[in-house]
Amino acid sequence: MPVVARSEFELIGKYFARLGAERSDVRIGVGDDGAVLVPHASRELVVVTDTLVEGVHFPVDSAATSIGHRAFAVNLSDLAAMGAEPAWGLLALTLPRADEDWLEQFARAAGDLCRRHGVALVGGDTTRGPLTITVTLMGLVPIGVALERGGGQPGDAIFVSGSPGDAAAGLALEQNRLHVADAMSAQILRDRFLFPTPRCELGLALRGLASACIDVSDGLGGDLEKLCAASGCGAEVDAAALPISEPLAKAVGRELAREYALTGGDDYELIFTVPLARLGAMNAAIARGLGPVTRIGSLVSGNGVRVSTRGAVMQFSGAGFDHFAR
Amino acid sequence: MPVVARSEFELIGKYFARLGAERSDVRIGVGDDGAVLVPHASRELVVVTDTLVEGVHFPVDSAATSIGHRAFAVNLSDLAAMGAEPAWGLLALTLPRADEDWLEQFARAAGDLCRRHGVALVGGDTTRGPLTITVTLMGLVPIGVALERGGGQPGDAIFVSGSPGDAAAGLALEQNRLHVADAMSAQILRDRFLFPTPRCELGLALRGLASACIDVSDGLGGDLEKLCAASGCGAEVDAAALPISEPLAKAVGRELAREYALTGGDDYELIFTVPLARLGAMNAAIARGLGPVTRIGSLVSGNGVRVSTRGAVMQFSGAGFDHFAR
Repeated sequence: MPVVARSEFELIGKYFARLGAERSDVRIGVGDDGAVLVPHASRELVVVTDTLVEGVHFPVDSAATSIGHRAFAVNLSDLAAMGAEPAWGLLALTLPRADEDWLEQFARAAGDLCRRHGVALVGGDTTRGPLTITVTLMGLVPIGVALERGGGQPGDAIFVSGSPGDAAAGLALEQNRLHVADAMSAQILRDRFLFPTPRCELGLALRGLASACIDVSDGLGGDLEKLCAASGCGAEVDAAALPISEPLAKAVGRELAREYALTGGDDYELIFTVPLARLGAMNAAIARGLGPVTRIGSLVSGNGVRVSTRGAVMQFSGAGFDHFAR
Repeated sequence: MPVVARSEFELIGKYFARLGAERSDVRIGVGDDGAVLVPHASRELVVVTDTLVEGVHFPVDSAATSIGHRAFAVNLSDLAAMGAEPAWGLLALTLPRADEDWLEQFARAAGDLCRRHGVALVGGDTTRGPLTITVTLMGLVPIGVALERGGGQPGDAIFVSGSPGDAAAGLALEQNRLHVADAMSAQILRDRFLFPTPRCELGLALRGLASACIDVSDGLGGDLEKLCAASGCGAEVDAAALPISEPLAKAVGRELAREYALTGGDDYELIFTVPLARLGAMNAAIARGLGPVTRIGSLVSGNGVRVSTRGAVMQFSGAGFDHFAR
């Protein structure tokens, strides 16, 4: 029955017609064959895209609010890692059926996060099929200052934001692979997986300070390895310096917490490097309220990531989260 | 085994690292958290995205070359409908397994089409899951001249490119819902579904000529209805004027061919309207080789699409292809 189908489809459109921020640089938004956007003088365009698949990137039957939040958060995190200011978004949503409640919750969570970061949803596509969400975000950065993975040099200090490992523990809790007696710790960890905080303001503040930057999606160790490979150097990480959250320490103990921090995925924190000559400026920025960042080691010549722990040194070996391995 | 998985994943990356055209306006392409693109002075940015899902937008076990071609062709068609010049692309590919042959064929077909239209692939995401392809394309258009759906006025002449209906017959052949004795006609129709030609050059040529434009993805009647709704008017189409290809006429006869032309989807032709004052310029452009376009009717005041056929007039009623109804 095409008439019913048509109205069902239009129903979906209504949830996304004006999602996110209102921006004066959107000349034509949702509703035509494409969006028309007004570029900004002396700004480069940064474009990122990430897909979430049910059962691969989030458990089957996850809350629609979490899926809507994460679909945009993981992309905002990529913009943050490039030092770009979020501007415009596209949503390609494939879903098995048009469920009004689900759509309303998905759109509300996505819209809240977009508004908070100044993102206007300017287009998209809604199709029937297995639940899969691809978000594309565009951001702006002054010419030549985008943060890259490959700018690190031996000697640079390595920092990480927030407390990595929490999200992996949160996912383990969601999947009943981990049990934690303390209900408040458990909830905090779950929320760190379900509603990650993209470090957009930090990414902007790192322009001109960081020599290299990458976001932690696959795990601190694996993503630091990628930064090292792109920068043509190695890294030494002090396990004792890893910022472990109190909820994670309570949940699994400090020893296991460090393993979560090094190998867990889905944190959406930033790893970045700062040349020694800019450490003074970096510390001043921290003092002015840059946010929760912790120095965890240094880039060194060579390659690979070595982690020193209680006098011993372990070679970190490719246990970065890989979607084909999950 | 994460090590195997990692190499499997990197394998996939290699197919897309340098896919498509080389462009000097790509400062950072595939391989960082995001791409960095250099905007063009006095150009607006046009952004489109479309998803293809196996079993919904193409039959299960379609050839990888067709899937790779179509994923980009349907998006190029959207850029054409906006009058935008293709520039940059992103590929979000979800696939059940890493099959080298499949990936090689997919990438080759996608790359060929991208190079032909000057599109550089600048980023993407490859994930495991049910076969789903979301392509996002960005194009450029001088400020204020993008073609819109809503610019038509009563009296404007309606044109369509190519020969609509072929692709729907081709899909019916692919799905064994239609049988055609003439092997060459059958192959031409199949190819029109499997390898549609996006009308990018036509779209550029229509800047300043067309008052409104939309591409035919859901069927001529349904997409013309959308153009009418956006323009606040109705349309009268002369069924006898519909451009029916010889292979389609041979395959199903002229009567049924007109039904295919009006209600079939997947053509990726352009429907556009031209004000009477610009018909002279339009005919001159056609004489200079604008390509295969045919006048099929006129916009009128009111709403909806009426089709006159052998003296009778039928009201076209929402039989536009809808993905939720397929």
